[in-house]
Amino acid sequence: MPPMTLEEVRALDAADPLAPFRDRFALPPGVIYLDGNSLGPLPKATAARLREVVDVEWGRDLISSWNTHAWVDASARIGGKLATLVGLEEDEVLVTDSTSVNLFKLIVAAARSRPGRGVLLTELGNFPTDQYLTAGAAQVLGLRARAVPTELLEASLTEDIAVLVLSHVNYRSGHRHDLARLTSLARARGALVVWDLSHSVGAVPLNLREAGVELAVGCGYKYLNGGPGAPAFLCVARACQPLLDNPIPGWFGHARPFDFTDGYQPAPGLTRMLSGTPPILSLLALETGVDLMLEATTPSAAPLFAKSERLCALFAGLVRDRCPELTLVSPIEPARRGSHLSYAHPHAYALVQALSARQIIGDFRAPDLARFGFTPLFLRYEDVWRAAEGVAEVLKTGAWLDPRFQVRARVT
Amino acid sequence: MPPMTLEEVRALDAADPLAPFRDRFALPPGVIYLDGNSLGPLPKATAARLREVVDVEWGRDLISSWNTHAWVDASARIGGKLATLVGLEEDEVLVTDSTSVNLFKLIVAAARSRPGRGVLLTELGNFPTDQYLTAGAAQVLGLRARAVPTELLEASLTEDIAVLVLSHVNYRSGHRHDLARLTSLARARGALVVWDLSHSVGAVPLNLREAGVELAVGCGYKYLNGGPGAPAFLCVARACQPLLDNPIPGWFGHARPFDFTDGYQPAPGLTRMLSGTPPILSLLALETGVDLMLEATTPSAAPLFAKSERLCALFAGLVRDRCPELTLVSPIEPARRGSHLSYAHPHAYALVQALSARQIIGDFRAPDLARFGFTPLFLRYEDVWRAAEGVAEVLKTGAWLDPRFQVRARVT
Repeated sequence: MPPMTLEEVRALDAADPLAPFRDRFALPPGVIYLDGNSLGPLPKATAARLREVVDVEWGRDLISSWNTHAWVDASARIGGKLATLVGLEEDEVLVTDSTSVNLFKLIVAAARSRPGRGVLLTELGNFPTDQYLTAGAAQVLGLRARAVPTELLEASLTEDIAVLVLSHVNYRSGHRHDLARLTSLARARGALVVWDLSHSVGAVPLNLREAGVELAVGCGYKYLNGGPGAPAFLCVARACQPLLDNPIPGWFGHARPFDFTDGYQPAPGLTRMLSGTPPILSLLALETGVDLMLEATTPSAAPLFAKSERLCALFAGLVRDRCPELTLVSPIEPARRGSHLSYAHPHAYALVQALSARQIIGDFRAPDLARFGFTPLFLRYEDVWRAAEGVAEVLKTGAWLDPRFQVRARVT
Repeated sequence: MPPMTLEEVRALDAADPLAPFRDRFALPPGVIYLDGNSLGPLPKATAARLREVVDVEWGRDLISSWNTHAWVDASARIGGKLATLVGLEEDEVLVTDSTSVNLFKLIVAAARSRPGRGVLLTELGNFPTDQYLTAGAAQVLGLRARAVPTELLEASLTEDIAVLVLSHVNYRSGHRHDLARLTSLARARGALVVWDLSHSVGAVPLNLREAGVELAVGCGYKYLNGGPGAPAFLCVARACQPLLDNPIPGWFGHARPFDFTDGYQPAPGLTRMLSGTPPILSLLALETGVDLMLEATTPSAAPLFAKSERLCALFAGLVRDRCPELTLVSPIEPARRGSHLSYAHPHAYALVQALSARQIIGDFRAPDLARFGFTPLFLRYEDVWRAAEGVAEVLKTGAWLDPRFQVRARVT
């Protein structure tokens, strides 16, 4: 039975060891932001850091900043910090490009390391870019792509599968796969798995080493609060690194890029997976977000994920009791879920708009889901309680029927 | 005979219609920056714009900015602005990813549109990433890559060539290819050309339509002053667009990305060449640089390029007369060159360091080139005159012999 009164949730906030982190974000007053799983809010330190990067590093120190402010190391340095969050060594993670481009690189590289296997497998309902890139990689390599429903995944791991492409946490339902189990099953059948951690890094506990994960990607703009379209990351376990060639071998992946040699020679470690010059402003904005997440998860990430579970449980309990019109499509057990909850409703789009007009920000995922993200770094229990109140009220009053809430925006 | 006295060059500055643009940049006092061809300096408006993007768009308006601040259109919108600078229509240019990733996309897409042709051709001495990506694209497609010396390029356009990958202006020598001639020659032999305009956009006149160019890429952080690692651009002439499939088909290239459908359906126009979520901070920083360049080239770009030629001529004349130790490796005729001049010297690295210690910033390109970029938006004739003075003095005094100037930095 979750706490139900405002007094009860305020007591939870008063006792919350993570409560001070809320003030580290530049949150607009009055807004209850349940969309940190789509775009994390602005850390105050990022605004300050970007002024320094722009005015001092770019503006004053100009080209020399590649050396003096270590821009040249940023992809590996930030990757090294991120490694702690996913349970890998610091030379096993890079920050570079977009999730889509990183998926392409790892899927193609992995498939080429499995000659004779003709199929790339993914899951129907996987995030679209993961499905599209699986098909795109197959096309460029002359292989076949196959997408199967979740319940057929394991049976589909036949001996023709080169690579399996899965999201750890599903962007719609929030369903969380068992990393270790599927990775080990795939390995037993001779396939590599590329995991997309976009909805899990910073949202659920991750120990890729322990789970035996060799290849992963993920995005920087959700729970890592790296800024809109923040560069993504890619992970390759050390033992796997020498086996993979970068299919987009740009100069930043060269062993000695500033020798400007005609012939490509891949860097010895993971930096071979870099391609072109990275977008430094966006990259360094992400670094501050990662630093903040590290601070909140050191010495232990357990309080963060425990709070995430409690926030979800609070919301789910209140909505279950007060909003019978909503159907929870997310697993209710925390271990089988990410840090967001999705509810089906035939007018989910209008519902999300009506909530947004009340400064309760969730999002809509076609065709019929209202999705709410619970990000323990900046959300208070009281926010979640008020959000559930708002949902109940919008449903009870029919506020979502207002015609202005029916007009679809381009980005949902 | 170029002007030789300080009075003469000051008279040129006094008469320069572009002189007011210098104040639009946050240049550090005392620095003579001849490296705008490597990293353009910070436009003051960009610093202000980024504060707005960070504090208001990301910080206050959060996820809604994808709609309300049109983040979702930024790649196409900035591409449309850039189109004017390269002589294309606004739906023929996109800003996205890095030059390396864009090269990969266009080379692979172009090669797939030329089935039966087994070779991707490029030039020895082309910028490394262009060579590496030509080889990388060939490898992924099961084709062969060939790199030939400049003088063999035309003879190498045999009927097995699918794609020719060339830089318009060579990053080292500054040598400028004849866009129209090589494009038409390649077409006559059945090959497509992917041009890299990184060292020509904003540096030399470009009219891709007139030159018959169908495919091009280029970077945003040089003459466009887009910021370190600014996103790159790609151009596909309208007639060519339906023929090309994006080999990295991410969700931003989908016809309706926010329908989140399982099957990929490419957007009807050039937006199909988008892949993942773009790095908005870096992207919008670039937009301000492009806006500034548009302002300086409207109604005519002729004054900009005329000034570039005069700056180069001034420097070349002074150095020719006063620095016999330096060998100009760049063509002296403006029409055969970009907007930079490179000089061979056995101790070019130390020379560039010694100049840098005097606040004259050029750069070194291995193994033996000192390279100086002449960017007419912010350089004064007096700057160029003083820079030539500085070069002459460093050579005359042997200042470059100082041991601290011999220590190689990681990035040169």
